[in-house]
Amino acid sequence: MSSSQSLICTRLTELLGIDYPIVQGGMVWAAGSRLVAAVSKSGGLGLLGSGSMYPDVLREEIHRVKAATDKPFGVNVSLRRDDSQALLQIVLEEGVPVISCSLGNPNIYVDMMKERGVKTMHVVTNTKHAAKAEQAGVDALIAVGIEAGGHPGPDELALMTLIPQLRDATSLPLVAAGGIVDGRGLAAILALGGDGVQIGTRFIATDESAVHANYKKMLVEAGATDSVLIGRNVELVRVLKNQFTTKFIAAQNAGASADEILMLLREGRPKITLKDGDMQNGQVQAGQGVGMIRDIVPTAELMRRIVGQYWHAKSTMPG
Amino acid sequence: MSSSQSLICTRLTELLGIDYPIVQGGMVWAAGSRLVAAVSKSGGLGLLGSGSMYPDVLREEIHRVKAATDKPFGVNVSLRRDDSQALLQIVLEEGVPVISCSLGNPNIYVDMMKERGVKTMHVVTNTKHAAKAEQAGVDALIAVGIEAGGHPGPDELALMTLIPQLRDATSLPLVAAGGIVDGRGLAAILALGGDGVQIGTRFIATDESAVHANYKKMLVEAGATDSVLIGRNVELVRVLKNQFTTKFIAAQNAGASADEILMLLREGRPKITLKDGDMQNGQVQAGQGVGMIRDIVPTAELMRRIVGQYWHAKSTMPG
Repeated sequence: MSSSQSLICTRLTELLGIDYPIVQGGMVWAAGSRLVAAVSKSGGLGLLGSGSMYPDVLREEIHRVKAATDKPFGVNVSLRRDDSQALLQIVLEEGVPVISCSLGNPNIYVDMMKERGVKTMHVVTNTKHAAKAEQAGVDALIAVGIEAGGHPGPDELALMTLIPQLRDATSLPLVAAGGIVDGRGLAAILALGGDGVQIGTRFIATDESAVHANYKKMLVEAGATDSVLIGRNVELVRVLKNQFTTKFIAAQNAGASADEILMLLREGRPKITLKDGDMQNGQVQAGQGVGMIRDIVPTAELMRRIVGQYWHAKSTMPG
Repeated sequence: MSSSQSLICTRLTELLGIDYPIVQGGMVWAAGSRLVAAVSKSGGLGLLGSGSMYPDVLREEIHRVKAATDKPFGVNVSLRRDDSQALLQIVLEEGVPVISCSLGNPNIYVDMMKERGVKTMHVVTNTKHAAKAEQAGVDALIAVGIEAGGHPGPDELALMTLIPQLRDATSLPLVAAGGIVDGRGLAAILALGGDGVQIGTRFIATDESAVHANYKKMLVEAGATDSVLIGRNVELVRVLKNQFTTKFIAAQNAGASADEILMLLREGRPKITLKDGDMQNGQVQAGQGVGMIRDIVPTAELMRRIVGQYWHAKSTMPG
């Protein structure tokens, strides 16, 4: 499938053994084995989102990806989770080629992964965390900008400034995440000095993503200014405006405490929208690029589009 | 001077008759005739910042630019200002080649400018305002992202998502503003579908900018995460952290009213820092790219660097 278009080679594609520098974010509930296998088959890197999986489910999902493709894929693990050690163990036992981790100390996992040949990517949001991750020996960094759906970093740096600053601060391959939905975004990131992109929200609006149909529909219908950052100073999250955010913002403006804010975020947990399809009473996590999502497509078609848009964007730059 | 490097031709350079698609923002107190003439002489477009000028001063400054160069230049006018009509009149009388306007209805000035051959650029922050400006007949749009110093739009869209969305919504030449300090940023914007960049903060840290030396020094010393957005829901402004922002944020967290917020912003007006050099008791407006500013340079040297970085960034993109 990927052979129909010219490869886009960067240090990231070399590191991971993939055709295009496109990583699919390991989103809770959305990034199951079907989506991951489809992305990896198409020449990108699919990441299983372990955040919504019990350890046994993760193992099954890994088996399903392996049954569907022999291309490289990975698992995303939040180190904040109580049972993260169990998840890391499964990644090792199953010989998963790539792991991406967030919200924790990279020293916890990097050495044991590298010993077994697992490539490691660590999520960072500023140069300080990048330096720590580089020192710990990770193979690549995933840099999350303020544009990202879900949890961007508290520093609120946009990719336009975050990527070149990280490029100046580290020699590691850099993957940019946040608001990127097409090949123009990929071209921009490579121009800024990045080595690839991680795309989240756009991959939810595919045939293969595991979320409720209502969620995909809402992504397609949302406009450019429909996402909003809530929970500042407590737990920052980018979501689409709905009844939940109206209630949340009213509580915040009325001076809700940090505990009350956290309780509201738990009450509106992403499962309500992603899995149950109730699009008004929970968090609809989505990035700032949502206004550019206009259809639900097969993953292979989306990958072809992104690659084609990259070549077009590059060829139309002056000079 | 500009002849030593290959031109970067876009629809913007064609429209304005310049060598490189680089506009210098018309920043209050900073963008006087020295800076403007230096930028225009170097092949970009300098914009006089009329925001800190009485009408008579603006006229004198226009004369000084004309005496220094016959290259195209422009004036930035805030339509919110009480005497904006007087400023527009001076632009017409003096035959200034380009005008950029913000914070108002483009219908007020577009026709009279176009009749006299003045090229018009209008500042927008979302697709809705872009459509209005296009309908009014402006020649180009200046799209301001959340990365920008001073006043980004209330929609808080980052350039990574704002530029491609505007590209899909309008056929006008698009100039991106916010957080761009080097040629990598220029390359990224052209990849996203923009036709040029407007650079503000970086041009303050030049020999020719008119601000107090303390201001330039603070820009050079600031790090990646030293800028902050304050005044949400009242008057959004991006500034560097200092005693003023500490006081401001404390008042905001204590539930200050919109009137109190506005009063604090007036008390800390930019003149205190830009002109008087008191860097603790006023707004230090600066964009999110401030962490990448590491020296104070002659404007011609900065322009050469940006152009060189563009060619390097483009040539190192895969394919």
